[in-house]
Amino acid sequence: MSQEVRLLAYPRGAPVAGDFRLVETAMPQAADGEALVAVEHLSMDPVVRMRMRATSAMGPPLRLDAVVEGRGVGRVLASRTPSLGVGDAVAGELGWRTHAVLPAAELTRLPPDDVPLRHHLNALGPTGLAAWFAVDLARPAPGETLLVAPGAGAVGSLAAQIAHARGARVVATARGSVQRAYLATLGVTPTDPDDLALPEGIDALIDGVGGAFHDGAVARLNPHARVILIGFVSGYNDAGPPAYGRALPILMRRATMTGFLLSDHAARFDEARAALAAMLEQGSLVPAETLWSGLAQAPSAFAALFADARPGKQIVAVAEACG
Amino acid sequence: MSQEVRLLAYPRGAPVAGDFRLVETAMPQAADGEALVAVEHLSMDPVVRMRMRATSAMGPPLRLDAVVEGRGVGRVLASRTPSLGVGDAVAGELGWRTHAVLPAAELTRLPPDDVPLRHHLNALGPTGLAAWFAVDLARPAPGETLLVAPGAGAVGSLAAQIAHARGARVVATARGSVQRAYLATLGVTPTDPDDLALPEGIDALIDGVGGAFHDGAVARLNPHARVILIGFVSGYNDAGPPAYGRALPILMRRATMTGFLLSDHAARFDEARAALAAMLEQGSLVPAETLWSGLAQAPSAFAALFADARPGKQIVAVAEACG
Repeated sequence: MSQEVRLLAYPRGAPVAGDFRLVETAMPQAADGEALVAVEHLSMDPVVRMRMRATSAMGPPLRLDAVVEGRGVGRVLASRTPSLGVGDAVAGELGWRTHAVLPAAELTRLPPDDVPLRHHLNALGPTGLAAWFAVDLARPAPGETLLVAPGAGAVGSLAAQIAHARGARVVATARGSVQRAYLATLGVTPTDPDDLALPEGIDALIDGVGGAFHDGAVARLNPHARVILIGFVSGYNDAGPPAYGRALPILMRRATMTGFLLSDHAARFDEARAALAAMLEQGSLVPAETLWSGLAQAPSAFAALFADARPGKQIVAVAEACG
Repeated sequence: MSQEVRLLAYPRGAPVAGDFRLVETAMPQAADGEALVAVEHLSMDPVVRMRMRATSAMGPPLRLDAVVEGRGVGRVLASRTPSLGVGDAVAGELGWRTHAVLPAAELTRLPPDDVPLRHHLNALGPTGLAAWFAVDLARPAPGETLLVAPGAGAVGSLAAQIAHARGARVVATARGSVQRAYLATLGVTPTDPDDLALPEGIDALIDGVGGAFHDGAVARLNPHARVILIGFVSGYNDAGPPAYGRALPILMRRATMTGFLLSDHAARFDEARAALAAMLEQGSLVPAETLWSGLAQAPSAFAALFADARPGKQIVAVAEACG
C-alpha cells in the first residue's frame, strides 16, 4: 500500500494540518523509462508556501487535491530504465508520498558514499549549496561581522558555520532558548531579530527574512556592506504581495543594487581622467554645458537644476557681467 | 571690488533667487601659504541643495549669511605659497564669489593643456569621473540596454555618451523637446521618466533620481541587472527624509544588495559540493536537522517552518511510522 499527502486548501496565513490530507493509494507502477522509488526522507522548504495560492509569483501554484510537491531522497524499488538499478539511491522532486514514479531524467543518482542519504537534502543538497553561494556572494572577510537570518534555519545554520570557518564574526538571528543555545554551540552569536544587538554594525548580511527585519538590518550596514537577498520567509504566509517592498525586484530578478560615492574611487582617478581626456580629444565625448553669464546669475543657474534645465552641466561664467 | 553670493534662507521646496543675495565685499588678501584666485567658472551641483537645511545628512549644513559653497576653476592673481604662481589655473571649493583666498593645500593646480578651463568642472572634473565610474560599475555590455536618469543632466549626459561608446543601447530620461532633441544628437533614445518606454527591459540602470522614478525603473529590470544609485534629485527639495525609502542605506553606505537564486550558480555546483563534503568530513560543518517520524507528520513539519522551529533542516523520515 502507498500513501500520499494532498493539499486540501490553500492555507490562510500560517499552514495548519487541516490544510492537508493523508490518502491511501494503490502502489504506482513504473512505465518504460521510469523508476519506482521508495521515498526515505522529504525536505521541508519554506518557499513551497509561496506556491500554495491561486496566483503564485514563485513558480506554478500547487494544485488542490494533488500530492504536495517537495524534494526527497529514496531508493529505487523497480526500474524500467537502463540508467537506474534496484537499490540505487536517488534524489528528486518525489513529492509528499511513500512511493513515487518518475522518469529517469527527473531523478539524480546519488554517489554510494558513506554519508546518510538525507545529507543530500541538507548540507550536500540545495540547502547546503544555497548557504555556500550566499556566503560566497556576501564575502565576509576575517574579522568582519556577518549577520544571517533566520540564523537557526536550514540554510542559515549552514551559512553561519561556513562563514565562521572563514574567520568572520557571525551573528545569527534566533528565537527562543533552544535556537539560541544551538547557535552558541557553533561559535555564533545569537541575536533577537526584532531587537538586533550589533554594536559593530553589519559588513555582510544574508537575508532570508525580509519585511521589518530587513529594514532594521539595512539601517545598521557599515560602509561597503554586502546584502544578499535569499528569501523573505516573514512574508510567505501573507495574502498580499511579497515583502521587501521596493527591493523585491532586486531579489526576483537576481539584480544587484550598489550605492555610489565618487570619493571611494579616488585611487583610479588618474586612470579615468586619462581615458576621459582621450575621449574628448577623439570627439567621442562632447561635454554639454549651459553657460550662465555673471555671478549674479548663480542663484538662477542653481534653481535651474531642479526645473528641467537646458541640457548638460550648468556653469556660471563668473566674470562675464562683472566688469 | 569683489562680489559674493550669500545664502539668505534655507529654501522651502525648490530654491528661488530670493533665497540668495549678491553682496559687494572688500578684495580679500592672501596670507602666508595662501593664494588669491580670480574665479572664472562655477559648477552648479544639485547635491548642494541637500546641505541647504538646518540638519543635513550629506555633509555639514551650509551656514546662513555665508558665501554659498561650490566648486570652481580660476587663475591665481596673487600667491604667498611657493607651490602656486601668478597665472596658474586652479580648481577647488572656491565658493560663489569673484575672488577667493584659499590655502595652497585646498587648490588643485590644473595642467596647462589646451582644453577650456571649465572642462575641469565637467568632463575632466568630478562630474566626468562620476559618469565614468558609474558606467564602470553598471557594466553595460554591447547590445544591453542602459537607462540613465536624469539623462540630460551633467553626469547623465556624459554617462550616456560613455556607455554609447562601449556599444550599449542607451536610453536616457528627458523632459521637454530641447532635452529630447539634445539626447537624439548623441545617438541616445530619450524616454519620459514618468512613462518609461523600455520594451526590452533594463540591463543596467544609473539612477540619480530616486523616488517614484526608481520604483518604476526597478520594476522593469531584466535578470541580473545592475542598479547604480548615484543620487536622488527628485527628493533634494523635500523637507522630509531623503527618497529611496528602504534602499537609502544602500546609497548612503555605498553598500551592494544582490538578489540570489540558487540555479544561477549551477555551473559551480560540483565545486561547491566537493567543498561542502570536505567540511563535513573534517567536522567543521555539522548539519543540524529536526527529524519528523512518518509521512503523516509532513503537514506538522511544514507548519513548524513558520513557527520558530527547532534548529536546522526539518526532514520527514517517511517510512518510519508506515509499517
